[in-house]
Amino acid sequence: MSDRPAHPSSARELRPVAFRDFVSEEPFALELGGELPALTLRYETYGTLLPDKSNAILVPHALSGDHHVAGRYAPDDRKPGWWDCFVGPGKAIDTDRFFVIGVNCVGGCQGSTGPLSADPRTGRPYGGFFPEITLGDIVRAQRLVVRHLGIAKLHAVVGGSMGGMQALIWCADYPAEVGRIAVLAAGLSQSPMAIALNAVSRACVERDPRFRGGHYVPGEGPEDGLAVGRMLAHISYLSPASFEQKFGRAKVPGAAAADPAHWQVESYLEHQGRSFVRRFDANSWLRITRAVDRFDMTARAAAGKLFAADGPEVLAVGFSSDWLYPTSELRMLLAAATAVGVNAAYHEVVTDAGHDGFLLPDTGLAVRLHAFLG
Amino acid sequence: MSDRPAHPSSARELRPVAFRDFVSEEPFALELGGELPALTLRYETYGTLLPDKSNAILVPHALSGDHHVAGRYAPDDRKPGWWDCFVGPGKAIDTDRFFVIGVNCVGGCQGSTGPLSADPRTGRPYGGFFPEITLGDIVRAQRLVVRHLGIAKLHAVVGGSMGGMQALIWCADYPAEVGRIAVLAAGLSQSPMAIALNAVSRACVERDPRFRGGHYVPGEGPEDGLAVGRMLAHISYLSPASFEQKFGRAKVPGAAAADPAHWQVESYLEHQGRSFVRRFDANSWLRITRAVDRFDMTARAAAGKLFAADGPEVLAVGFSSDWLYPTSELRMLLAAATAVGVNAAYHEVVTDAGHDGFLLPDTGLAVRLHAFLG
Repeated sequence: MSDRPAHPSSARELRPVAFRDFVSEEPFALELGGELPALTLRYETYGTLLPDKSNAILVPHALSGDHHVAGRYAPDDRKPGWWDCFVGPGKAIDTDRFFVIGVNCVGGCQGSTGPLSADPRTGRPYGGFFPEITLGDIVRAQRLVVRHLGIAKLHAVVGGSMGGMQALIWCADYPAEVGRIAVLAAGLSQSPMAIALNAVSRACVERDPRFRGGHYVPGEGPEDGLAVGRMLAHISYLSPASFEQKFGRAKVPGAAAADPAHWQVESYLEHQGRSFVRRFDANSWLRITRAVDRFDMTARAAAGKLFAADGPEVLAVGFSSDWLYPTSELRMLLAAATAVGVNAAYHEVVTDAGHDGFLLPDTGLAVRLHAFLG
Repeated sequence: MSDRPAHPSSARELRPVAFRDFVSEEPFALELGGELPALTLRYETYGTLLPDKSNAILVPHALSGDHHVAGRYAPDDRKPGWWDCFVGPGKAIDTDRFFVIGVNCVGGCQGSTGPLSADPRTGRPYGGFFPEITLGDIVRAQRLVVRHLGIAKLHAVVGGSMGGMQALIWCADYPAEVGRIAVLAAGLSQSPMAIALNAVSRACVERDPRFRGGHYVPGEGPEDGLAVGRMLAHISYLSPASFEQKFGRAKVPGAAAADPAHWQVESYLEHQGRSFVRRFDANSWLRITRAVDRFDMTARAAAGKLFAADGPEVLAVGFSSDWLYPTSELRMLLAAATAVGVNAAYHEVVTDAGHDGFLLPDTGLAVRLHAFLG
């Protein structure tokens, strides 16, 4: 008999985590014009910041993620943070060594200033009046939190999808403040087909009569439109092979042949749509997808103003079955980095999981990422 | 000087064409149960049927197509039929030699019995009461027209996408009545991801409050939902490369940077959605997409009951950038046919046009198809 715990892995989980709010009463100017008169940024940290503050890693989230990157608030939470399989003690992003930061993005709906927040000028939620934003705005706001924590230079920025785009913006706009970036499942710009998919998901929201030009009462918003828009987005996160493996042509048990809606894949997507609506705001969806669609670093890359030999090291990670941000886009990113002498590498994860592959454990990515972070 | 016409190609156009209606007062039994008490099938023909009726080619249409395959009703029609580039005098399907038949499918909305038709039992449009159908029903109805024209055996059935699925059903159900089939941009079954895309496009329609369970007054239906559903479908007909070439990241001229909807691709899709609604019925869209989703010949192929050595010859045509019905599906189709000794071939069209590649001229397909038809 041993006195070790029966489930040694659970002994290595993050202790219960808590979010905090960074509040600034300064106006926050926006890239496309206008400003937010004040800013709240909800964030979480994991691990311990070294006295010289050299071990901080920022993990920007993807479209529907948030500041809750890892761990549980309470032991009986049904789910941990969205990247718990990569962030924690002894994990790829090892919180025994690194101080990890997650920040809910500006325009989001999980605590940071966004369409659901009260506009201090009116006392009422911004709603449809929330301004258009860019990923540059989102990164500039994150940087306020990083500065607030006293960190002059991040050890790394690591992000997938929209998070990877933010890592690229850190690299372009604040190259002296980041040691290395890992860009997963993203490219130098949002492709026209990815824009098209986002455009249709927005059309689903905007044509819901309850959208009212964005001026809906929270809780009485365009839930149907947002659910369908999310169903579409969800398709783009998977791959033909994962659809085949997860659902095949299986029917919902008990459905009659002439029943009009009887595919398991249909039922799964409906469920995804319904559960998304419970945690996401339609105006946030519109603002953030538009910010992603505006993302375009190709001109800066071509002009040699994205990567620099004395700037951050780069790891580009592609996922073989990702059709939203195909591996060709990550290889272009690598080419742009190596062309100007950056210490850069490309790693391809062979997976049937599609774009969502970056969220999954057991793809071999953890080992590569761990090595990259040094 | 020559007395040849200045535009020799125009001299080779089909003379003005006209549709006809085949009407049956017999009840038409449906595969999933129930029946249609009567049947109208709108069809067109091009070229001349030989006295021995051996030169007929049936061209079943795709999801949003119809019986108007080729030619113009009047010289000043803005557009000819949907496959005019392949069907006509001297073209791939040469109406100087062949008698070509197009039939609007059962469940459609261009003249054949469908949700917009009056139910003879009530005198009112079927609307939401129109029964669920299958592609088998659609083919069985087509066959009534073929029989009505006195044709015991078709020289060929040639179809793309849903039209290709119908060609496979002819092969499986009436092998002695077809000489050869050409299946373009389709597979042995509707894939789970293709079902998922259709499911979301249906959800767009069904959650439009004007849908009313399908019981809308014609002209007051779920136009927004159908338009958005079509926008989504349209994305699946193109390819990443065609989005890149057609639109890139171009903005609508004059749009301000902070304008929320300013991508040309967005504007193009909106236009596609709006114009589709003018010519298509939402209940038809639901019935036909569900019929396509039910299409599954894999079990019959595996059991050796789809192709037969003494059955139709097979040409499978894949389009390199088609991600809705990838070339792998057509190669599987070829494998299933050759495995049982069928005279079969696979031809791949290398194109960036995606699934819609089968509708375009100048891909080299015309030469291959012409040779196959003998």
